[in-house]
Amino acid sequence: KIDGSRLWDSLMEMAKIGPGVAGGNNRQTVTDADSEGRHLFQKWCEAAGCTMGLDQMGTMFARREGTDPDALPVYVGSHLDTQPTGGKYDGVLGVLAGLEILRSLNDLNIKTKRPIVVTNWTNEEGTRFAPAMLASGVFAGMHEQDWAYARTDAEGKTFGAELERIGWKGDEPVGARKMHAFLELHIEQGPILEAEGKDIGVVTHGQGLWWLEVTLTGKDAHTGSTPMNMRVNAGLGMARIMEAVHTIAMDHQPAAVGAVGQANVYPNSRNVIPGKAVFTIDFRSPDLAKLTSMRERLEAEAAEIAEGLGLGISIEPVGHFDPVTFDPDLVTTVRAAAERLGYSHMDIVSGAGHDACWINRVAPTVMVMCPCVDGLSHNEAEEITPEWAAKGADVLFHAVVETAGI
Amino acid sequence: KIDGSRLWDSLMEMAKIGPGVAGGNNRQTVTDADSEGRHLFQKWCEAAGCTMGLDQMGTMFARREGTDPDALPVYVGSHLDTQPTGGKYDGVLGVLAGLEILRSLNDLNIKTKRPIVVTNWTNEEGTRFAPAMLASGVFAGMHEQDWAYARTDAEGKTFGAELERIGWKGDEPVGARKMHAFLELHIEQGPILEAEGKDIGVVTHGQGLWWLEVTLTGKDAHTGSTPMNMRVNAGLGMARIMEAVHTIAMDHQPAAVGAVGQANVYPNSRNVIPGKAVFTIDFRSPDLAKLTSMRERLEAEAAEIAEGLGLGISIEPVGHFDPVTFDPDLVTTVRAAAERLGYSHMDIVSGAGHDACWINRVAPTVMVMCPCVDGLSHNEAEEITPEWAAKGADVLFHAVVETAGI
Ligand SMILES: NC(=O)NCCC(=O)O
Ligand SMILES: NC(=O)NCCC(=O)O
Repeated sequence: KIDGSRLWDSLMEMAKIGPGVAGGNNRQTVTDADSEGRHLFQKWCEAAGCTMGLDQMGTMFARREGTDPDALPVYVGSHLDTQPTGGKYDGVLGVLAGLEILRSLNDLNIKTKRPIVVTNWTNEEGTRFAPAMLASGVFAGMHEQDWAYARTDAEGKTFGAELERIGWKGDEPVGARKMHAFLELHIEQGPILEAEGKDIGVVTHGQGLWWLEVTLTGKDAHTGSTPMNMRVNAGLGMARIMEAVHTIAMDHQPAAVGAVGQANVYPNSRNVIPGKAVFTIDFRSPDLAKLTSMRERLEAEAAEIAEGLGLGISIEPVGHFDPVTFDPDLVTTVRAAAERLGYSHMDIVSGAGHDACWINRVAPTVMVMCPCVDGLSHNEAEEITPEWAAKGADVLFHAVVETAGI
Repeated sequence: KIDGSRLWDSLMEMAKIGPGVAGGNNRQTVTDADSEGRHLFQKWCEAAGCTMGLDQMGTMFARREGTDPDALPVYVGSHLDTQPTGGKYDGVLGVLAGLEILRSLNDLNIKTKRPIVVTNWTNEEGTRFAPAMLASGVFAGMHEQDWAYARTDAEGKTFGAELERIGWKGDEPVGARKMHAFLELHIEQGPILEAEGKDIGVVTHGQGLWWLEVTLTGKDAHTGSTPMNMRVNAGLGMARIMEAVHTIAMDHQPAAVGAVGQANVYPNSRNVIPGKAVFTIDFRSPDLAKLTSMRERLEAEAAEIAEGLGLGISIEPVGHFDPVTFDPDLVTTVRAAAERLGYSHMDIVSGAGHDACWINRVAPTVMVMCPCVDGLSHNEAEEITPEWAAKGADVLFHAVVETAGI
């Protein structure tokens, strides 16, 4: 077993960087706080005897050598970036559990056959720069690197310029590495494991996703002196499409979700009818047919709503992946590890997107999940217990060592 | 008649201060740009031989003496502050037409019996610091001055501190002045005069208003991994209340309007179900019963919507005035002036709130309106013709001189 209290201490230490306003973290991707978190992780990896690789997307690769110099490494990791009002465990647990595996192997003086590489993927969250899982997406050949560099944040800064500015743009070509396997531990970010009283989720599938960005164009006008029938109210159009997103998701139950996360009206003044609205839609399902159907129905209904109000509309897809099936052999390995350790477990579908969802395209991949309190994530109040973290890391440890060979 | 081209040149000169991004103005109240506009106005007033008074709310009073030293003055004016994306005429026309009257009287060497005072009321727009018509409201005894000073903008700055910072907080007690009459020229900000082909609106009434600020409290959660039935989505609640505002206004037709101007969700991240929403509602009607009914119905429906979604709700009134009936004698004076000048005219109800609506409580008051293109206002594209401006100022000139006596 790994050292649960060392893992917990490292989680708490990392959480001091980029503190939030309510006990969580704001360590958004390619900010100064992100850079500080990377330095701490690098220091810890070097102390554990690793060499550090850095690719052109800023992804970090901490390597512990294996006994077979020709064997492809086993990769393990997640991300250190957070939501603007994020928790202390989302992503971070997966990276630091990877590090804890190396520390435990050192303690036990175990040499694995294959090298083990712990990764910190850049910009997993996708809030500041859409889409999510940006660096792992480039790694898996899903996005062009130049396109990724050109992603802009709300202030118009590009991902590429910000990565360069914080000093974490490496030389290594992205995606050049070949992997024997990739394993990612992550908190569930949903309520199922806790409700079912299980320690471990064996992740067999991941939901697919569509992220859409809608812009409605109406006419700014005075709220008092413009008669109702002369209004071209972009805010009202936004409200109706927000309701449509919800209705569409409800009509695709079970196993489908939909929500609007960002919503902005312009000029956002009390006595001005909004002439413009910009908002984002997030649809997900493990079922490709449902995912496609939700998007298509939304596009049709939104166009109808806009037309009914005389609004201009554009709908831009800004993120997408199909539902994922993880590697059956690795799934078996994870399930066996949980069984061997005597931890209660169940098969589960990942509700969130993860770097593992992209890496699954280029290497055998699996995920391990642990519960989180009330299923709460993307919230500073996100919480897990040290025991949950340790059990998840134990299963990851066994599965990684099994896969890397001794 | 006044000098239409001199009036137009002054409008264009003032519009250079606090330029907008699309040809209009961003000269919001008690900003540096507001201060600059005040200096220009003061320079012009002094050049026209006026003395300048300044009260503790920053309202400016430019006085041209009358022949009867004991007679109460006739006041005329409006406001120089603008919306964040405002036009060049909303408010400004009424102040500079007042100045143009003084200039014309000087040219014609006319002495009126009563003094004439041109006013620039502070914070008419109410966008940065709600409510609108803040200084005229304190003047009329509708608000406490300390309450007005404590109004905060989106960054938490107070009105009082900002007024002091820009250097325009005067010594004169607010509301100490007694007025024989107050006259305000304003662009219509609606489409009626242009549609009816009339030069002049004789404003007999003004709509009443309720401004409400709604805060919904739900739970930030992950958009992907939170099942639909476990969400407490403040954004969805906002969307439903936005639709309710629209439906309620439509159900009170004719002569009632309703819209949401500001709409904000938190944390405003693509993959976070909003845990909080804050937005503003603007209901208006010239009919007090309708105005009250709209507010009451909204409060009931919003509470129901919030309860249905499990959201916390607070609804705070941040602005209110009852419908206004302007002084019948002054209305007759304005109508007669339009008639005498041979300008087409019609009686009209003001859709917007104006300083005149508050001053009407403490002095005989009336308004004159001129058309604006497409009824567009609170929009940088707000436009009027020099001819419309001149005709409005001519009617104001005649009505003011008639009221001040020669
Ligand atoms: N795990 C996680 O929250 N990833 C961000 C991308 C997503 O929204 O699923
Ligand atoms: N005239 C004007 O736009 N005043 C601002 C207050 C209001 O919204 O009516």
